[in-house]
Amino acid sequence: MNLPKLPPLPKPSLSMVTRYMPILQWGRQYDRDTLTSDVVAAVIVTIMLIPQSLAYALLAGLPAQMGLYASILPLFAYAVFGTSRALAVGPVAVVSLMTAAAIGKMGLSNPADIAIAAGTLAFMSGGILVVLGVLRLGFLANFLSHPVIAGFITASGILIATSQLKHIFGIKAEGDTLLEMGVQLFENQHLTNPITLAIGLGATAFLFWVRKGLKPLLLQVGLKPRLADILAKAGPVAAVAVTTILAFAFNLGDKGVSLVGEVPMGLPPLTAPSLSPALWSQLFMPALLISIIGFVESVSVAKTLAAKKRQRIVPDQELIGLGASNVAAAVTGGYPVTGGFARSVVNFDAGAETPAAGAFTALGILLAAMLLTPLLYFLPKATLAATIIVAVLSLVDLSILSRSWAYSKIDFASVAATVFLTLGFGVEMGVSAGVLLSIALHLYKTSRPHVAEVGLVPGTQHFRNIHRHAVDTLPGVVTLRVDESLYFANASFLEDYVLNRVTRDKTLRDVVLMFPAVNEVDMSALESLEAVNQRLKDMGIRLHLSEVKGPVMDRLKRSHFLHELTGGVYLSQWDAWCALHQQASEADAPAVAEREDLAAQ
Amino acid sequence: MNLPKLPPLPKPSLSMVTRYMPILQWGRQYDRDTLTSDVVAAVIVTIMLIPQSLAYALLAGLPAQMGLYASILPLFAYAVFGTSRALAVGPVAVVSLMTAAAIGKMGLSNPADIAIAAGTLAFMSGGILVVLGVLRLGFLANFLSHPVIAGFITASGILIATSQLKHIFGIKAEGDTLLEMGVQLFENQHLTNPITLAIGLGATAFLFWVRKGLKPLLLQVGLKPRLADILAKAGPVAAVAVTTILAFAFNLGDKGVSLVGEVPMGLPPLTAPSLSPALWSQLFMPALLISIIGFVESVSVAKTLAAKKRQRIVPDQELIGLGASNVAAAVTGGYPVTGGFARSVVNFDAGAETPAAGAFTALGILLAAMLLTPLLYFLPKATLAATIIVAVLSLVDLSILSRSWAYSKIDFASVAATVFLTLGFGVEMGVSAGVLLSIALHLYKTSRPHVAEVGLVPGTQHFRNIHRHAVDTLPGVVTLRVDESLYFANASFLEDYVLNRVTRDKTLRDVVLMFPAVNEVDMSALESLEAVNQRLKDMGIRLHLSEVKGPVMDRLKRSHFLHELTGGVYLSQWDAWCALHQQASEADAPAVAEREDLAAQ
Repeated sequence: MNLPKLPPLPKPSLSMVTRYMPILQWGRQYDRDTLTSDVVAAVIVTIMLIPQSLAYALLAGLPAQMGLYASILPLFAYAVFGTSRALAVGPVAVVSLMTAAAIGKMGLSNPADIAIAAGTLAFMSGGILVVLGVLRLGFLANFLSHPVIAGFITASGILIATSQLKHIFGIKAEGDTLLEMGVQLFENQHLTNPITLAIGLGATAFLFWVRKGLKPLLLQVGLKPRLADILAKAGPVAAVAVTTILAFAFNLGDKGVSLVGEVPMGLPPLTAPSLSPALWSQLFMPALLISIIGFVESVSVAKTLAAKKRQRIVPDQELIGLGASNVAAAVTGGYPVTGGFARSVVNFDAGAETPAAGAFTALGILLAAMLLTPLLYFLPKATLAATIIVAVLSLVDLSILSRSWAYSKIDFASVAATVFLTLGFGVEMGVSAGVLLSIALHLYKTSRPHVAEVGLVPGTQHFRNIHRHAVDTLPGVVTLRVDESLYFANASFLEDYVLNRVTRDKTLRDVVLMFPAVNEVDMSALESLEAVNQRLKDMGIRLHLSEVKGPVMDRLKRSHFLHELTGGVYLSQWDAWCALHQQASEADAPAVAEREDLAAQ
Repeated sequence: MNLPKLPPLPKPSLSMVTRYMPILQWGRQYDRDTLTSDVVAAVIVTIMLIPQSLAYALLAGLPAQMGLYASILPLFAYAVFGTSRALAVGPVAVVSLMTAAAIGKMGLSNPADIAIAAGTLAFMSGGILVVLGVLRLGFLANFLSHPVIAGFITASGILIATSQLKHIFGIKAEGDTLLEMGVQLFENQHLTNPITLAIGLGATAFLFWVRKGLKPLLLQVGLKPRLADILAKAGPVAAVAVTTILAFAFNLGDKGVSLVGEVPMGLPPLTAPSLSPALWSQLFMPALLISIIGFVESVSVAKTLAAKKRQRIVPDQELIGLGASNVAAAVTGGYPVTGGFARSVVNFDAGAETPAAGAFTALGILLAAMLLTPLLYFLPKATLAATIIVAVLSLVDLSILSRSWAYSKIDFASVAATVFLTLGFGVEMGVSAGVLLSIALHLYKTSRPHVAEVGLVPGTQHFRNIHRHAVDTLPGVVTLRVDESLYFANASFLEDYVLNRVTRDKTLRDVVLMFPAVNEVDMSALESLEAVNQRLKDMGIRLHLSEVKGPVMDRLKRSHFLHELTGGVYLSQWDAWCALHQQASEADAPAVAEREDLAAQ
C-alpha cells in the first residue's frame, strides 16, 4: 500500500480560497510521477466509461450523447472542487434511474423538452448540493441509515436490471415499478425480436464470463495481474465493438434490431437550464432526493478509498465538488451525475493519485465525443442493456435482509420497507419512506427506554442489573439505572415506571436514579423529574441521583430541581451506596438494639 | 388530604368489560356519602359551566345552545368510560378555538352546514381517540413536548382573548391570526358601539375583581372559606344575570348591542354526522390535532388531580373515555369537547369523588337547556366575551419563554417557534410546526453526541472527564466515553471523532470506548464500529470496549464484530484500566531495563 505523498488537506483555518478549491493545495506539488500515474488511470477509466455513459443515458430515458456530455465538464469541475483523490464522477445507474422516474412522471414527449428537464434537474440538484455544502449541512445525509441505503441500492439494482429486459427482448415495457414493467414485459413478449434477444443474451453471457472467468484465464496464460485486470475491464468495449460490427455487417437495423442511431459529433453543446417556476416546483423533490442519494453514494466510496491511503475527505467540501459537477453537467448538455462506485475503484486500483486523473478521463471522453460518435450508429441497444444488467447486478445484495433480521428487527423493518416500497412504488417513494420509517422507529424505541434495577457486584464498586448478575442490594432502597436520554418522548414513561415500581414495594424509603446513560434531560423530562420527586415526597420516599454527567448537571443547576430534591446527588453510585448503607445502619441501630433486648428477655 | 376510599383501578388482567367501562368498578362501592359529595360538586360546576358553555360555543363560531348540548351527553359518556375521578368534560377554550379555525377555513355560510361540520368534527375526533385508545397508542401524545404545549396554550390564550375584543367593542373582526384580527379591529374601530363597550369593559373589570378581590373580602366579612369559594365561582353567573336584566330593561338590542337572541328550548336534538368523503378529508387533519391537543390537556389535568389523592388514571382508557364523549357530542347537537382545566379543579376542590359528579352536572345543564334558555335572549354577547377573556388570560404564561431560555436553548427554540407560528399563522400551523421542530431539534442534538475523554478519579474505581476532574490516565491509552446511543444519525460522527483523536497522538497503542451511556447500537453504528476497528488496526492500534450494557452486548454478539475486535471487552472500565495498566508495565519492563543499561554505561 502506498503511503501518502501529498500534504494533508486544508484545515478550516486556511484561507477561504484554498478551502473551497482543493486543487490549489494538491496542484502545487504536482510532478511527473504523479502525472504518469494519473494518465494511466485515466486511460483505463475512459475505456470503461464510454459504454457506461451511453448505457446510463439510455437508462435515464435520454439520448446516448447526453451520457458522454455528462462525463466531460463535470469531471473537470470535480477535479477543481472535490477532495477525494480517486473518486470518478459521471452518470451512474441509480441516479440515472431516479432521473428517469422524475422525468417520466412529467409526461413529456418532445425530446428537446426532455433534455431541458434533465439539464434543469442537474442544475437544481447541483444548486442544492452547493447550498448544503456552504451551509455545512452534510450531516443531513446521516439520516439516511445504512440499512435504508443498502435496501434502496439493492431494490434499485433490481428495478434497473428489469428495466433493461425490454432492450434485451426488443419490446416495449415502460414503468417505474416492478409490477408495471413485469406486466408490460409479459403482455408484449410475443413481439420479441429473436436477433435482438440473441445479441442481448450473448452480450450478457459474455460480460458475465469476462467478469468472472476472464481474469483467471489471462493469469493462467501468463499475463501480469495488472494487464489482466485492464483487459477484463475492457470487456464491455469488446462487446460494443463486436455487436456494432455485426449490426453493420448484417444490416440488423432493417431486421428490427434497435440501434443507438445517429449521435451528434463534436463538443458538448452549451445549454441553459429552464427557469420556469412550474418546472422547478415539479422537480424540486426529485432533485433533493437525487442530491442526497448521489452524495451518500459518492461519499461512502470516497471515504472507503481515502481510508486505504490514510487520506481524509471533507464531506462538506464534497457537497460543493459534486454540486459544481452537476451545475457543469447542466450547462453542457448533460444530466445529474455523481461519484460512481465501480469506476472509482477502477480509478483507484489503476493508480490515480489526484483528481487530475478525472480531468484526463474527461479529455478522453471529449475525444470520443468528437471522433468516435459516428461509429456508434450501428451499436445495438441490447448490448448497452447487457452492460447495465451485468454492472447493476453487483449492486443487488439481498443478504442485507437476513443480516438485518439477525441483528435487529427494527433495522430489518427499515430495510424491508425500503426494498418493498422501492420495488412496488418507485424510487422516490422507497427512499422517502425508508428515511421517515427509520426516524419514526428510532423515536419509538427511545420513547420506551430500558430501565434496569441494579445492585452492587460483590467485591467491586460496580453496579449491574439484578436480573443478569449476582449482586447485593440494600433493604428499603431501590436503584434504577435509566438507559436512555430523558426527553419529551419518554418523560412520562419514566414517571409512570418509577411510580409503578414504588407502589409495588411498601417498605421503600429511598429511590436512587442512576444517570450514567442519561445524556440529556430536556425541559419536559425536568418537569417529569420534578413530578416524580414531589409524588415520592408525598409518599415519604426520598429521591436521589447518582452518576449525573457534567453537561446534564450543568443544566439541572440552572433549574430549581436540585433545591427541591428530597435526597442527594452522588458523583458515583458507589458513593450513594455507602451513604445510604450508613444511614440504614444508623436508622436500624435502635431497632437492632430493641430486637436484642427482646432476645435477652 | 383524603386517603383513597375506593379500590385501585382495574388492571389489564381483569375482564375486558370492566377494563373498558371503569364505572362497573367504582359503581359497586357507591354509597350515600359519595353521592352527597358528588352532588355538591355538581351544583358548583353546573353554575360555572352554563355561561362557559354558551361563551365557548360563540368562540367556536357556533350557536350558543351547541355549547349546552356539548355539556350534557358527553358528560354521561365520560362518567361511564373515563378513569379520572375529578375530570370535568365539556367545551373548552383551546378546542373551541381550533374548531373555529377548522370550520372557518371551509368557507361555509349556512348555519345548518356549520353545525353539521362541527358535529362531524366531534365525531371524527371521537373516532380517532377511540381508535388510538383501543390500539394503545396513547404514548403518541408524548411527542408533544411540554414546552410546545406550554407555548401553544399561551399563544392560544392570546388569540382567544384577541378574538373576543370584537364582542367587547361591538364590531366585526374575523381571522385566525393575531395580525388578521388586529388589522380588522383597527379598521373597524370607528364602528364601536359605546353601550356594548361599557357592558364589555364593566363585565371584564367585575370578573377580574371577583377573581382577585372577592374571596379575600368575603373571608374578611366572616364567611367560611368553602362558601367564599363558591360565591367567587358564581361571579360569571352574576355578570350574566345583571347584564341580561339591563339589556331587557333598557331594550339594548335596539340600541345596537349584540344579544345572544333566541336559544331553542328543550332536549338536545339527535344529530347525525356527515359521511361525505370530501368533508372528512377536509376535516381529518383538524380532527387529529383537536384529538391530540384535547387528550394532552385533559390527561395532564387528570394526572395532576389523581396524584393528589394517590389515584391513577389509565391514559389509554382516557382516550376511550374522551372519544366516547366526543361521539356523544356529535350525535346530540354538540361539538368537540375535552376535559377542562379550570372546571376540573373546581370539581375536585368542591369534593367530587367519582365520575358520577359529571353525570349530575350533565343533569343540571340539561335542566338549564330545558328551562332557562328563554332567559338568555337578552344576554349581551359582550358579557360572554368578558367571561372568556378573564378565563383564558390565566392560560397565558409568557414566563415559559424566559424559563426555557434559561434551561435549554433547544427547548426555547421549540417554545418560541410554537408561540410565534400560532400567533402568526393560526393554531394548526403552530402546533404542527412545534411538534416537528422538537423532533428535528432532538435528532439534530443526538446526531452530534457528546464524547468525553476520561481518566481515573484517584483512590476510586470511577472514571470522569479529564477536563472537569483531576484524574489519572495511562500513557498510550485513550479512553473515550460516548454519551449517546449510537444510531444512524451519529454513526459517522463517532467514526470521524475517533479517527481525528487518534491522528492527533502518534504514541497511542490502545483506544477504549466506554459505553455506559450507549443504550443502542443499530446496524449503521455497528458498521461504523467495524470501520473504526479496521482503520485502527491498520494503524497498529487496538480497540477495546468497556461497560457495554446487557441489551447492547446481546446484540453485538449476534454480529461478527466481537470476533474482529482487536482488543477486549471489559465489564467495567476499572477492569479495562487494570488490564491495560498491567500490559503497559510488561511492555515497558524491557525498555526500562535498556535505559538502565544506558545509564550504567
